[in-house]
Amino acid sequence: MAEAESAQAKGGLLYLNDLEIGRRFVSGPVTLDADAIKAFAGAYDPQPFHMDEEAAKDSLFGGLAASGWHTMALTMRMIVESVPIAGGVIGGGGDIAWPRPTRPGDTLHAESEVVSVTPSRSRPDRGMVLLKTQTLNQKGEVVQVLQAKLVVPRRG
Amino acid sequence: MAEAESAQAKGGLLYLNDLEIGRRFVSGPVTLDADAIKAFAGAYDPQPFHMDEEAAKDSLFGGLAASGWHTMALTMRMIVESVPIAGGVIGGGGDIAWPRPTRPGDTLHAESEVVSVTPSRSRPDRGMVLLKTQTLNQKGEVVQVLQAKLVVPRRG
Repeated sequence: MAEAESAQAKGGLLYLNDLEIGRRFVSGPVTLDADAIKAFAGAYDPQPFHMDEEAAKDSLFGGLAASGWHTMALTMRMIVESVPIAGGVIGGGGDIAWPRPTRPGDTLHAESEVVSVTPSRSRPDRGMVLLKTQTLNQKGEVVQVLQAKLVVPRRG
Repeated sequence: MAEAESAQAKGGLLYLNDLEIGRRFVSGPVTLDADAIKAFAGAYDPQPFHMDEEAAKDSLFGGLAASGWHTMALTMRMIVESVPIAGGVIGGGGDIAWPRPTRPGDTLHAESEVVSVTPSRSRPDRGMVLLKTQTLNQKGEVVQVLQAKLVVPRRG
């Protein structure tokens, strides 16, 4: 743990050896407005409740809501900026849940925590880290929970 | 099944009642180039192997690769365009895996299949559909597997 803290304190990059279960990372904030929600939806999730305030009122969301994949994409950027893993943040997959929608004007941040660290048996130069990232809005409500399986290089 | 086929044949929207296990949906194609890969990465996943050909050579990807979330966002658009669910494609979450990267010039399409249909006990007007969507490239290789839990309204 001392090694890991030292690595981050020096602004260094973290290897598998540096990551212990329970280690946490907190990102800076990002705010999204209705225009950003509509632009993302227009490109990737063109449905009325992500693109039109009036149509959204009659939907399950009861008002304009960001595509869950927009929340996810912004969360990825926050993870990249807050979790300094050597070799980058590279995921083989994971699972995702959206307990509530992201709304216009929300300010989000991401809180990540190492859930497990598993050295590879077949490849001694790397391992798998399960990273749980909660995305919270300005009220402290969780809008997304991501559990991502990351490939992380091992030092030495 | 006859009812469901009839609904789709008429261009109608599908309700929980119309969806049976094994029902399949195939999207049209989408092609992405290096510029699109870099633009998405610049906004949401700013890492060298998604933004710079030279830097990508030395990464785990061995060459420029799309952000997995870019593949996912494009897949969402293909699902929206190919799976005509009443009320829209609304997911509470799911799990995702990327067996191999998406590369510049790849042409993707999405093949979706209904895995399970579960009427809600507490809300008789809706249910949950587990939809498995495989995203394939022009060689027929699977670049992404998504299993999404969709909220689907019940007819009547």
